[in-house]
Amino acid sequence: MSLFDTHRPLLDNALDALAARGYWSAFPETPSPKVYGETAAADGQAAVMALAGKDYPLHQPGERARVAPERSPYGVRLDIRYPECDPGALIAAAQATEPAWIALGPRGRIGVLLEALTRIHQRSHEMAHSVMLTTGQGPMMAFQAGGPHAQDRALEAIAQAWKAMADIPAQVRWEKPQGKRPPIVMNKHFEIVGRGVALVIGCATFPTWNTYPGLFAALATGNPVIVKPHPNAVLPAALTVSILRQVLTEQGLDPNVVTLAVTPDPAVTQALATHPAVASIDFTGGNAFGQWLLANARQARVYAEMAGVNTIVIESTDHYDAMLRNVAFSLSLYSGQMCTTTQNILVAQGGIQTDQGHKTFDQVGQDLAAAIGALLAKPKVVGAVLGAVCSTDTLERIEASGKTGKTVLASKRLQHPEFPQAQLRTPAVIALTQADDAVYKRECFGPVSYLVATESSDASALLAQSMIREHGALTLGVYSTDAGYIEQMIAVSRRAQVALSINLTQDVYVNQTSAFSDHHGTGGNPAANASYTNLAFVADRFVVVQWREHA
Amino acid sequence: MSLFDTHRPLLDNALDALAARGYWSAFPETPSPKVYGETAAADGQAAVMALAGKDYPLHQPGERARVAPERSPYGVRLDIRYPECDPGALIAAAQATEPAWIALGPRGRIGVLLEALTRIHQRSHEMAHSVMLTTGQGPMMAFQAGGPHAQDRALEAIAQAWKAMADIPAQVRWEKPQGKRPPIVMNKHFEIVGRGVALVIGCATFPTWNTYPGLFAALATGNPVIVKPHPNAVLPAALTVSILRQVLTEQGLDPNVVTLAVTPDPAVTQALATHPAVASIDFTGGNAFGQWLLANARQARVYAEMAGVNTIVIESTDHYDAMLRNVAFSLSLYSGQMCTTTQNILVAQGGIQTDQGHKTFDQVGQDLAAAIGALLAKPKVVGAVLGAVCSTDTLERIEASGKTGKTVLASKRLQHPEFPQAQLRTPAVIALTQADDAVYKRECFGPVSYLVATESSDASALLAQSMIREHGALTLGVYSTDAGYIEQMIAVSRRAQVALSINLTQDVYVNQTSAFSDHHGTGGNPAANASYTNLAFVADRFVVVQWREHA
Repeated sequence: MSLFDTHRPLLDNALDALAARGYWSAFPETPSPKVYGETAAADGQAAVMALAGKDYPLHQPGERARVAPERSPYGVRLDIRYPECDPGALIAAAQATEPAWIALGPRGRIGVLLEALTRIHQRSHEMAHSVMLTTGQGPMMAFQAGGPHAQDRALEAIAQAWKAMADIPAQVRWEKPQGKRPPIVMNKHFEIVGRGVALVIGCATFPTWNTYPGLFAALATGNPVIVKPHPNAVLPAALTVSILRQVLTEQGLDPNVVTLAVTPDPAVTQALATHPAVASIDFTGGNAFGQWLLANARQARVYAEMAGVNTIVIESTDHYDAMLRNVAFSLSLYSGQMCTTTQNILVAQGGIQTDQGHKTFDQVGQDLAAAIGALLAKPKVVGAVLGAVCSTDTLERIEASGKTGKTVLASKRLQHPEFPQAQLRTPAVIALTQADDAVYKRECFGPVSYLVATESSDASALLAQSMIREHGALTLGVYSTDAGYIEQMIAVSRRAQVALSINLTQDVYVNQTSAFSDHHGTGGNPAANASYTNLAFVADRFVVVQWREHA
Repeated sequence: MSLFDTHRPLLDNALDALAARGYWSAFPETPSPKVYGETAAADGQAAVMALAGKDYPLHQPGERARVAPERSPYGVRLDIRYPECDPGALIAAAQATEPAWIALGPRGRIGVLLEALTRIHQRSHEMAHSVMLTTGQGPMMAFQAGGPHAQDRALEAIAQAWKAMADIPAQVRWEKPQGKRPPIVMNKHFEIVGRGVALVIGCATFPTWNTYPGLFAALATGNPVIVKPHPNAVLPAALTVSILRQVLTEQGLDPNVVTLAVTPDPAVTQALATHPAVASIDFTGGNAFGQWLLANARQARVYAEMAGVNTIVIESTDHYDAMLRNVAFSLSLYSGQMCTTTQNILVAQGGIQTDQGHKTFDQVGQDLAAAIGALLAKPKVVGAVLGAVCSTDTLERIEASGKTGKTVLASKRLQHPEFPQAQLRTPAVIALTQADDAVYKRECFGPVSYLVATESSDASALLAQSMIREHGALTLGVYSTDAGYIEQMIAVSRRAQVALSINLTQDVYVNQTSAFSDHHGTGGNPAANASYTNLAFVADRFVVVQWREHA
């Protein structure tokens, strides 16, 4: 049985889920021993630590050095030495694989990818530990977002690619009537041809979740891929690339369909990105490099997910405590280092109506601070929810945040029970007025949120709209008991082209999306020009080449 | 019954045709009185001539003058005065229509568009005469390409847009199990939101066929459109825009969903193209302005169809006479003014094997010249096939072509039986060697073809590949009796990402594509970055905005 036929049920389930957009997941998010095996967690951790201090087992063309750029935010010594390869050699190796990878066709390619994805899934605990140690995520998030949720997004990208490619029949008979004369009959062949070498540039915080959609979409549609991980989060990408190369090799294919480009030198990344053979770039990261790519890598189609100013508007609520708990959790999760974490919380300066009576602006701030404090009062929660800060830039932003406004809640350093060197930081909340737009309209990545006193709730809506149209956002939330105000915020979300979460009070958070149902990014505001994972994310990664002849 | 329901069978038939990609057409290509009515042709011509010398009945915001920029290649005096509108006023008017046009939803919009398309179809003879008089096309091509074939491409774009939009359910219930606790249940809404104002820039030669895909794709996906026709081919666009505005008005919608921007001033077009509100641009025309748009209209997604060096490789044939007749017709049709017309014919310097024995390179040239001469010997054919040259630049290129190589067949001016001022020109064929790449690698738009003596047939294949990768092409043809050589040329078409026609000898020509079956352009080489009409042409014209709330 072909790999495609073996995994066809998985693909079909994913296609059904995409059509329905209800809840579905191919890969269980609970790291339960019953699901993953009694020793799976310990085995995964051991497998990662067995790599520490060694040459990573990856052999690629053009190796010119070994580099070990990772510094764990948990202070765990990794010192894994990856090959640093000549960019030209990686490109040439990728190009050499194109004819066979294209000739394999959609079924052949998707069979290989689903086999690799299944094996990635089996190693979820290893993947989780590699994500945790390199990014600073807490163990639960590292497992879920780095493992099954990332795998779901990969499957979603594969399923969308399949849909787009299956739209084209491979061959047809074309018969044009000619009145009383015999018809003109032609045979036509249509082939899916990848656009060329794809470069997938990962980020420091979600090295699998943000890499898999572009990686699997590009591969499925017939493009060889060079994965360029963030220098501080190489291992999760290296494990992924190794598994893909292993399956390719087993299938008699050239493993250089997927290679890993490890480099701490931005000039090397720039050289790769602007190489004439690179036809597409998937990028997750900051605006500066994203805009550089859009301006300079003009030969490539760039799918960029950058930064924005995610916003929650609080107009009123009939679940005040639950709202505060929900927002507190959103701000705390991974110490605000998600690209979807709320930065700006807009509250009318006159305060809000709640089920506990009117609350002044100051009171909302104090109550939010108290909710964050209550959430993080338990040491067990701290290590699980916060995670470690993964960059010194973020630590500096936290330090500087107190000078930008009135501190409602100061960020504190907490001790991690297991990892004494981990920089655990609690969220800072800074009060501003609407006039302080020089502060709150800039992204301040990390656990810093601004509570902005707006002139009115209508002003909040207008501000959210203009701010997101101008500076982008991946998420927008609203709390209101007023159906008219919610309608107004829906119009805001439409005009600013951003997803809206309304009155989240239960175990769903504005910064989380669910594969097969929620889109991540709309692609319609400055935070991202693409969306995980819609048809537009896959449909332009290949062209259809046809040939026709008389029958 | 809604317009959508009324026209649903037409849409369904188009969707079936796209899935099958066999022959299908919604709109009969024969201008037969039995199909279109006994007086339809005369009525259509009369309707066009009734507009001559008058203000065109179109009233739009920001009108600041009336302009009559058209000069018919047939010498017919049109002098139709169109409104020239302030670009800012057109943009503002388009933006004002966005909320209602988006709110109408895919069904509502497609109902309006199919109603308008049906009315456009009913006026095919009027459309044909307006295309003929403004472009110089012969009457049959003006009818077919300007009427039903353009309408088929419009329907194809609408059907693809429907597919891409129907991929997203409007609302769903999302229910996530929580073990023994009750599930988390959310209601989610997904809305198709157009990216913003679309600009559709038409060309001088196919003012409907090349305008309709972008126009109807952009409208269907929720974007208001400003149609900017070529100054010499305004009327077909004006008639189209008027019909759309009429249907919009009847439906109680703002007609400024579609407006016409007539201007002879390139600076006005540039101002429109770079306006921050313009989110997409569809462009058909020369490389210079296409590249300008790609470099300067950075705020917009540009779908560009530009120029290339269309090529036929002749390796051998067992239908020598039929091959020559087929190529002669391709070169003659509309005097080579199709963006798909073959420019370069590659023949090995040692000649070719045919069913009539070996033919030297020189003999092939003489026989091709003779075939063109035989085709154009009948005065009736001349007016029908050639059409009139529509630009003085093209006339100059014809004059200059004799100096670029050895003239195998000189272009001749012929008299049109009806229109004495029409510039009828027969194709020129110029012999070159492979070394003359400075000549044949540049597009020479119009009835000039180069017969290039290559070092060998293998050299022809390599040259075709490198030339098309570097300079682009919309069409590639091959004649060969050698299955291995055809395989080689299929590989060339794949690497150069260009459609290949193999051994065309019957009534199918390399420069023609059939909607619902053949793609026009692959989008994968420098001649065009988009394809009529695949999913990629429609899928990124809208974003999906979602909102979610607890059930």
